[in-house]
Amino acid sequence: MNSIIGYDPVGAWEYASDTLEELLEHHNPAGISWININALDSDTVNALAVKYHIHPLTVEDILDTNQRPKTEEFDDYFFIVLKAIHRENEEFDYEQISIVLTEDTVITFQQKTGDNFGGIRKRILNNAGKIRRASSDYLAYVLMDAVVDDYFTVLDLVSDRIEMMEDRASDDTDDTFMTDIQDIKLTLLHLRRCIWPLRESLTKMIHSGSPLIHDELSPFLHDLHDNVIQAAETVDSHRELLTGVIEMNLSAISNRTNKVMKVLTIISTIFIPLTFIVGVYGMNFTNMPELSSPYGYPLTWGAMALIAIGMLFFFKRRRWI
Amino acid sequence: MNSIIGYDPVGAWEYASDTLEELLEHHNPAGISWININALDSDTVNALAVKYHIHPLTVEDILDTNQRPKTEEFDDYFFIVLKAIHRENEEFDYEQISIVLTEDTVITFQQKTGDNFGGIRKRILNNAGKIRRASSDYLAYVLMDAVVDDYFTVLDLVSDRIEMMEDRASDDTDDTFMTDIQDIKLTLLHLRRCIWPLRESLTKMIHSGSPLIHDELSPFLHDLHDNVIQAAETVDSHRELLTGVIEMNLSAISNRTNKVMKVLTIISTIFIPLTFIVGVYGMNFTNMPELSSPYGYPLTWGAMALIAIGMLFFFKRRRWI
Amino acid sequence: MNSIIGYDPVGAWEYASDTLEELLEHHNPAGISWININALDSDTVNALAVKYHIHPLTVEDILDTNQRPKTEEFDDYFFIVLKAIHRENEEFDYEQISIVLTEDTVITFQQKTGDNFGGIRKRILNNAGKIRRASSDYLAYVLMDAVVDDYFTVLDLVSDRIEMMEDRASDDTDDTFMTDIQDIKLTLLHLRRCIWPLRESLTKMIHSGSPLIHDELSPFLHDLHDNVIQAAETVDSHRELLTGVIEMNLSAISNRTNKVMKVLTIISTIFIPLTFIVGVYGMNFTNMPELSSPYGYPLTWGAMALIAIGMLFFFKRRRWI
Amino acid sequence: MNSIIGYDPVGAWEYASDTLEELLEHHNPAGISWININALDSDTVNALAVKYHIHPLTVEDILDTNQRPKTEEFDDYFFIVLKAIHRENEEFDYEQISIVLTEDTVITFQQKTGDNFGGIRKRILNNAGKIRRASSDYLAYVLMDAVVDDYFTVLDLVSDRIEMMEDRASDDTDDTFMTDIQDIKLTLLHLRRCIWPLRESLTKMIHSGSPLIHDELSPFLHDLHDNVIQAAETVDSHRELLTGVIEMNLSAISNRTNKVMKVLTIISTIFIPLTFIVGVYGMNFTNMPELSSPYGYPLTWGAMALIAIGMLFFFKRRRWI
Amino acid sequence: MNSIIGYDPVGAWEYASDTLEELLEHHNPAGISWININALDSDTVNALAVKYHIHPLTVEDILDTNQRPKTEEFDDYFFIVLKAIHRENEEFDYEQISIVLTEDTVITFQQKTGDNFGGIRKRILNNAGKIRRASSDYLAYVLMDAVVDDYFTVLDLVSDRIEMMEDRASDDTDDTFMTDIQDIKLTLLHLRRCIWPLRESLTKMIHSGSPLIHDELSPFLHDLHDNVIQAAETVDSHRELLTGVIEMNLSAISNRTNKVMKVLTIISTIFIPLTFIVGVYGMNFTNMPELSSPYGYPLTWGAMALIAIGMLFFFKRRRWI
Repeated sequence: MNSIIGYDPVGAWEYASDTLEELLEHHNPAGISWININALDSDTVNALAVKYHIHPLTVEDILDTNQRPKTEEFDDYFFIVLKAIHRENEEFDYEQISIVLTEDTVITFQQKTGDNFGGIRKRILNNAGKIRRASSDYLAYVLMDAVVDDYFTVLDLVSDRIEMMEDRASDDTDDTFMTDIQDIKLTLLHLRRCIWPLRESLTKMIHSGSPLIHDELSPFLHDLHDNVIQAAETVDSHRELLTGVIEMNLSAISNRTNKVMKVLTIISTIFIPLTFIVGVYGMNFTNMPELSSPYGYPLTWGAMALIAIGMLFFFKRRRWI
Repeated sequence: MNSIIGYDPVGAWEYASDTLEELLEHHNPAGISWININALDSDTVNALAVKYHIHPLTVEDILDTNQRPKTEEFDDYFFIVLKAIHRENEEFDYEQISIVLTEDTVITFQQKTGDNFGGIRKRILNNAGKIRRASSDYLAYVLMDAVVDDYFTVLDLVSDRIEMMEDRASDDTDDTFMTDIQDIKLTLLHLRRCIWPLRESLTKMIHSGSPLIHDELSPFLHDLHDNVIQAAETVDSHRELLTGVIEMNLSAISNRTNKVMKVLTIISTIFIPLTFIVGVYGMNFTNMPELSSPYGYPLTWGAMALIAIGMLFFFKRRRWI
Repeated sequence: MNSIIGYDPVGAWEYASDTLEELLEHHNPAGISWININALDSDTVNALAVKYHIHPLTVEDILDTNQRPKTEEFDDYFFIVLKAIHRENEEFDYEQISIVLTEDTVITFQQKTGDNFGGIRKRILNNAGKIRRASSDYLAYVLMDAVVDDYFTVLDLVSDRIEMMEDRASDDTDDTFMTDIQDIKLTLLHLRRCIWPLRESLTKMIHSGSPLIHDELSPFLHDLHDNVIQAAETVDSHRELLTGVIEMNLSAISNRTNKVMKVLTIISTIFIPLTFIVGVYGMNFTNMPELSSPYGYPLTWGAMALIAIGMLFFFKRRRWI
Repeated sequence: MNSIIGYDPVGAWEYASDTLEELLEHHNPAGISWININALDSDTVNALAVKYHIHPLTVEDILDTNQRPKTEEFDDYFFIVLKAIHRENEEFDYEQISIVLTEDTVITFQQKTGDNFGGIRKRILNNAGKIRRASSDYLAYVLMDAVVDDYFTVLDLVSDRIEMMEDRASDDTDDTFMTDIQDIKLTLLHLRRCIWPLRESLTKMIHSGSPLIHDELSPFLHDLHDNVIQAAETVDSHRELLTGVIEMNLSAISNRTNKVMKVLTIISTIFIPLTFIVGVYGMNFTNMPELSSPYGYPLTWGAMALIAIGMLFFFKRRRWI
Repeated sequence: MNSIIGYDPVGAWEYASDTLEELLEHHNPAGISWININALDSDTVNALAVKYHIHPLTVEDILDTNQRPKTEEFDDYFFIVLKAIHRENEEFDYEQISIVLTEDTVITFQQKTGDNFGGIRKRILNNAGKIRRASSDYLAYVLMDAVVDDYFTVLDLVSDRIEMMEDRASDDTDDTFMTDIQDIKLTLLHLRRCIWPLRESLTKMIHSGSPLIHDELSPFLHDLHDNVIQAAETVDSHRELLTGVIEMNLSAISNRTNKVMKVLTIISTIFIPLTFIVGVYGMNFTNMPELSSPYGYPLTWGAMALIAIGMLFFFKRRRWI
């Protein structure tokens, strides 16, 4: 359900409705209004576009959910595209958030239904933090900050998974291991493409010189910029660690193959010559003097024991056993 | 067949002919003309060059179909080289598109016969979209946009193929696997070389300050620039995923070899000692007391069973079985 | 325990207390004061923030110990975040150090209890070096320099470990090898993220033009900048060497497997044909003329000797033995 | 043999001689002269240097054939160093070409004897193209263009070789394969070092603002710059493809080893248990009831057939056969 | 032993002594003096620092032999740090060279005893080259040039070693191979860290605008800059070739293992079934009709020959033999 929150330093109210007209009636003429649109439909977006003079290209970008994160300055408004990531059980859920920032209104477009910004809503209604005393750009900052914070939650989860993969790397021999690695790699690629363009977006906002972005916001944007860089660097570290896990796995498989080979070689190398010897005295030649000798049998055992012991010494010297 | 489309806000017509003179007779003196040349021949290009004062180097670039995508500003016109990619069944087909943009005319040169811009033609004739109301640079933008859109179609197909390779990575043992990987890699390299220089081209167009590129086009070019960057990033992601697929395959082969080795080692290690024992009592020494003992045969069986069970325990402990 | 050191060219004193009020009473009104806060608690930080007009975002950064190293210029003060690394036995211990630099006061916030700056304290109290004669920015430089020096100590230790890994690379077959490699890789990633942003921080300080950073400090900051670059390059070299160690290990395992295989193949290839031959003359056919021939047995031995010698020649020619 | 070509819009002549004095007598006082020096000797270069006021460092660079490609602007002349590559049968031949460009003279120094610029000579003498109507910088451009064109010939040949290696990658087991790969890699490294610095050289020429480089040349230099970038990118693509070929080969070897292992394992695993069984009934115990049973022999065969079929089923299920 | 050389266009003398005072007495008041200090000791450096107004940080940098190559401009002098590399038998010897350049004096500090600059000394004393006619900055250039020339000598040696490794890559099976590779890699890393920062140093000198660096030196510094870039690129090429050598080696080991496996498999696969057959007719069942048949023995041989031939055909078809 779409909603509008009107607020100013002295008060704040929320009104939820599926009809855009009803929402707009609750617009705050004196203070700031935050309109939140859930689950994009093109009629609502177009109606808002007409009301707030939004450029047709912006409308197109809001409705096309395959946008790269970006920031665009227009005559009357700032347009910000973000990619939010939520964790749903063991899966990640990507969602495009578009923000249109004007002097007295912030419009957020969420691709999917769901309450991304519940915490911020509560802070406004309960007058926690400084949102109610600040201008509309501060609300936009708080919204972006919430999205970036989610990246760290997701990165922590990815970090846990990489550690699990590290543990499996030396044991696992089934093919799901590499599929899981590829899954994590894909997640990191997605994260990278969500996070990386944000650096540029924020730099653009900081240096825009637009009257919509007040000077007081500058340290906050710098701070957010630092966080984004940290997130981007964490993604890169995770990718390197993942490479390390693959190497661990390759090395572990090679080691295991080597050990299996050794067992086979030790057993074969000891018994193959002995089997040959017993084969010799299993031959049916009429003229085999050893066979009738009373010491033939024990001497054969002795020779075989010597061979076996010799082989074991050989393997010992090579440190195979 | 070459064609000319003349249009202005009030009307549009199309005329197709193989003779350049006939085409040029249908030139729209008041509005904008779009001349489309199929399957380059040097006579036509030279004749157009004379008529539209095109620089000899541009003519050379149009006729040489190994150009890199680029944008060049000349006194009277803008020259844009693009690489279009079409999907033909399971193959990709590359084609060079050259665009000469003047104040009132857009000339497109297609390397091969085929209708790349059928959709745009229809939009002009049916007055869909804003092409007919805009200046010639907007037509050039729409043409470039159509080419870039095709990149995403191709990238989606490549994405499907990579997923198929991922599935094959753990099963496949024939050498066509790596050949297919190399094919996809080659496609991605081609795509990269088509897409990457476009970024620079668009930046050049945005900042050219040429009177041919009107201010109203700027947000559209920025949007196209974003799309191109997204395409370039998708190519890079695909390359990384492909590397992952190769690693999956190497790991899968190693794993399989390891399993084959284990089976061989288990069977050999159990039976080689037993075969030795039965070999011993197959010897023909006259003096072998065990042979005549009534418990000799069953005791031998017992000893062999013990050895086999011992081996199985050993493998169990090593988690081989 | 928190402490304050007041100093000027003629004298210096130190006072330690857990109560902030007591510390601030010992503030040096004429010269420079250095306040050191151990083991961050938010009350102390907030009280100091009020007293020294520290921006709420700076307070947040001081208390959040997951900051990237950075430098920020505010109206009244410079804010510097560093990551210190100590060696604790065989482990590394990371700690965030925040420095607030004003005209007459330097406040250091250490994340953990412990005496990071004991040497500097002594130099001030004993008037060693030029700290007492210099302005507050020089103390900040000395503190940063001490942190950077620790990086080299840690890098030397990492270098020793890589060398140890090199020695193990050709021997080791257990899976702890790759785990240790991954550990070192993780340490290097951490170090990189501590060191890399410092370059930017220092460049920012050098070019800040702030009255807090005096011209005399410039060569010292340049010098520190050079050290930081050297540390960053050493981290990169270490990473490359580590890659080399992994390759050494993979190559060593492959070599070992190859050798094991050779032993197995030599033994098997010599004895399998011989075992076949002795098997032939162990058959019980009634009609085997060789069996009753007086030369059958010695000729069989001769043939087997020839086969064995032939095989050995074959292996010799292939350089297997 | 060294040569001089004098030309102007109305005529052109060529004179070849080994004596520098004779050549210089044929200098074209009104138009442009092109002096070509084959197989560098220091006397000739020094004599020319005196005559044309060439800086000692330029002389040194001309004589030292290990120069990087570069462009240097001096008071009176432009100095350009290029690396030409020719194909000699299956080998590549590298040669340094130095060009000294003055207002009315172009001097080319070729490291080796040979006719690099035969085509250009003919175009001048036959007045083909616009060289005779252009200033001296255009001749320098045409010479550079000829050298760059050769890069594409060489790159095509390298491309063919990589394709051949691709075909060999899945078959070949001898060590010449990797030696050939390394050869191609070396060629690509050489090419890269010939081509890469040319970008910078051309940018320098374009932006030099020197009166020697006329405005009319600018589109030609831009065009050449595009070609050089394309050559550089082709080198990079080739390197990536080569990496792919190495991976194909590694994968092919692993696959082959895996198949060899399977054959060995299938044969061994079927026959080793059977050989054990026949060994059992080859034992000479007096008390073996099975031996005298009339069904012993056929039952044994039956049991062995069952074991063999069971094994085959097991392999079938594992998709080994 | 430390030394001083005084020179001007008309004359030159050298004086060697361990006492700094004696050296300074031979200072050339009219021309240029070159003071060379061998084997750093802090007293000498400090004494010189006082005499020539050298900044304490410079003194520290001279004495700390772990400096990165760099160039620093001070009020009165230029300070240059270089890393010289000498070849000592099969080892490389690294040494830090610091140069202090003033208007009329060049001071060189060599970390170790040894005659790095013997050739330059002779050229001054014998008035070879233009050193005696040039200003002090030219001497500094000549010294730097000598150090850079040594890099190429070392790089040639490394190149030879890489070629040797290439030859060993396909033969060698002992673990010293990878240790040697790692050694070369380490050398290249060291070289890179010596060479890379020199680019920046030279750019800084070229653009310094300091009165100590005269305009006439500019082409010489540009030339040196080109040489340094060439050295840096050679280092990078060598690193790539080394990677190629490692790949050659891995491929060679895999190939060898594959061949060993094939021999084992061929021999086993042929003889294991035959051994089974002879085992069958070695059984002691009373009821084996084949045994008493007169054709049993020859038919068995025939069957075994057929099996062996069949196997050989199978291997032939698979191209194993």
